[in-house]
Amino acid sequence: MIGMDEKIPEGFKFYGTHAGIKKKRKDFGLIVADHVCHAAAVFTKNTFCGECIPIGKEHVKNGELQAVVVTSGVANVATGKEGRENEFQILDKISSKLAIAQENILPSSTGVIGPQLPIEKINTFLETHSLELTENYEDFAEAILTTDQRIKVQSLEVGEGKILGIVKGSGMIEPNMATMLAYILTDIKISKEDIYPMLKIAVDQSFNTISIDSDTSTSDTVALLASGHKTASMEELQIALNQVCHALALDVVKDAEGATKTMFVTVKNAMSQEQAKNAGKSIINSPLVKTALFGHDPNWGRIAMALGKTDGLIFDPNRVEISYGEYPIFSENHEELQNIEQIASYIQENEDIYLTVDLHQGTQDFQVIGCDLSYEYVKINSDYST
Amino acid sequence: MIGMDEKIPEGFKFYGTHAGIKKKRKDFGLIVADHVCHAAAVFTKNTFCGECIPIGKEHVKNGELQAVVVTSGVANVATGKEGRENEFQILDKISSKLAIAQENILPSSTGVIGPQLPIEKINTFLETHSLELTENYEDFAEAILTTDQRIKVQSLEVGEGKILGIVKGSGMIEPNMATMLAYILTDIKISKEDIYPMLKIAVDQSFNTISIDSDTSTSDTVALLASGHKTASMEELQIALNQVCHALALDVVKDAEGATKTMFVTVKNAMSQEQAKNAGKSIINSPLVKTALFGHDPNWGRIAMALGKTDGLIFDPNRVEISYGEYPIFSENHEELQNIEQIASYIQENEDIYLTVDLHQGTQDFQVIGCDLSYEYVKINSDYST
Repeated sequence: MIGMDEKIPEGFKFYGTHAGIKKKRKDFGLIVADHVCHAAAVFTKNTFCGECIPIGKEHVKNGELQAVVVTSGVANVATGKEGRENEFQILDKISSKLAIAQENILPSSTGVIGPQLPIEKINTFLETHSLELTENYEDFAEAILTTDQRIKVQSLEVGEGKILGIVKGSGMIEPNMATMLAYILTDIKISKEDIYPMLKIAVDQSFNTISIDSDTSTSDTVALLASGHKTASMEELQIALNQVCHALALDVVKDAEGATKTMFVTVKNAMSQEQAKNAGKSIINSPLVKTALFGHDPNWGRIAMALGKTDGLIFDPNRVEISYGEYPIFSENHEELQNIEQIASYIQENEDIYLTVDLHQGTQDFQVIGCDLSYEYVKINSDYST
Repeated sequence: MIGMDEKIPEGFKFYGTHAGIKKKRKDFGLIVADHVCHAAAVFTKNTFCGECIPIGKEHVKNGELQAVVVTSGVANVATGKEGRENEFQILDKISSKLAIAQENILPSSTGVIGPQLPIEKINTFLETHSLELTENYEDFAEAILTTDQRIKVQSLEVGEGKILGIVKGSGMIEPNMATMLAYILTDIKISKEDIYPMLKIAVDQSFNTISIDSDTSTSDTVALLASGHKTASMEELQIALNQVCHALALDVVKDAEGATKTMFVTVKNAMSQEQAKNAGKSIINSPLVKTALFGHDPNWGRIAMALGKTDGLIFDPNRVEISYGEYPIFSENHEELQNIEQIASYIQENEDIYLTVDLHQGTQDFQVIGCDLSYEYVKINSDYST
């Protein structure tokens, strides 16, 4: 990883400020490229999706984007025709002010589902402020936050150039083919044909492996913009892209609402990657597994239960092995029950908990990442919010 | 409903005591019929199932049972060959003592997953105690409890005879084709051909519609025994059976770990019952919906999110209507936002919350039943238990 001021890929500028959606905190962010970039994006599969999602899909369809605009505090979901029109008013104003074609702007909104955007306030703000773009990407990273505890930024050098990734998200998170709000910028040249498949590969092995609470957001978006000022080999770039996406996804889990532990669940020797992933998700989404983790309880019986309820998973319970960290806790001969105390200490003393389930059934492995379920999660999400 | 002493269908006796599995509380129960009954049972679909499950399946295969034995405190799950042998030791002793063929006894175990049954203690108990059967079904109902707060019994008169149902369960509950431990007894004559389909219909519209925490137990069993001393029309019996199963299922949700509210979610006008059920389950299993309910928050945006993430659900978000009780909260014209305060009061003042989601897409309705997610659920399930 590299220094603060050297992280920005060539060709990108940023903006982040308070425009009047939230009470005080920053709620309006922009990423703007110096010219039209090759771009790709993946979006939530939630049918009840935000008004930005169909607009974004339409705008990125031709593989080109020049800017991203994010409003935070109100998700603009389930807001109907009025919500759609509000979004176009914002796009229209930004398009004029920045002299960028409207169809090259990707819009995102995140926050409470239901209310309309305070469009009068946003319009007044846009009419009375010049949008001064700078290199301060942290302003942007802050402007897109909602219940997040901190900004989440990752960067890497690759070939001649750089990758910068910015993400938000800490609840309502079990991405399905897409995730939260994440923007990945690079100055490396990528062809229009390559850019979507490369993003898809990176997202599948990163954002799509995490779950905080099994709830799929209505606004999930991951976009990749490539300004093309530099070059690198595509193999090298894919590796770097995977690495940045994985680090960003981990940042999201680390910022999970109320979480005290991160759990890495590796399911080994399944019949397929799909089955291994489903088994891992069944484990990290089980409320009983999550509360046991919060209680530092090496309750492998609940792991077995969650494994057994996985839809379509083929395995023989008699051949399964379960380990916490280096300590086996369940296998056919039951010789490991003396490890219980060591495992209890392992869970108590570590923030990152590694759980391995070996099915001894096939040859495919998959790792998923989740967290515990704490009083604090209940508190955050039961506070009167509407 | 009828008086305590008149609830027992002719031909059944009971037993419930402390045999040494738990520290002090009752942990050993029996139901015994005066002769071999026509019988049917449905079992958990969890692959990591208890040692009793395959034995039970085998014993009920011919449509006959005469007795049920339940041990509570240890689930006898993931205990391998030793666990299976322990179960047969118990069956063997009961078979001799009661002069009932082993293959006419249905065994069940419920409790902690992992440890072996304390078979020496159970053997000593069985060798030194006569199993005196009585009409006190509450002893049995108490002997099968684990984290339950109370015994759960329902009864009805039907035709000349009666139905008595006894259930346990309060956590690790999202039954899949079967459920918890539930025993339904009747003195009405039912043919071997009719008994399984009748049980299946009753279970599908009762136990299979509830979810406490989306976790499917490893020991779920529902059994129906018919002693055949009386008669009733099969239509009448099916209605009564449905009613008893529904009341028992509701008893389970009402005893849900840490729950303060029961939520009845009706999804209307879906393309199929299956889709309506999946949408309802997606809503009542969403941690964000459950925590909002705990916080008395009429957060219909989370209902919309959970609806939208339902796998395979076909609907148009613009035509959906959502209501709490009598109060619409979301529809196309957004005229109901003034109901927010009334709905907040409705949630605060009632224990039973009725949520209706009208998809306006097809003609099929389904109701599912769930509960909130509270601090107490986290407390109960994060306490060190292994």
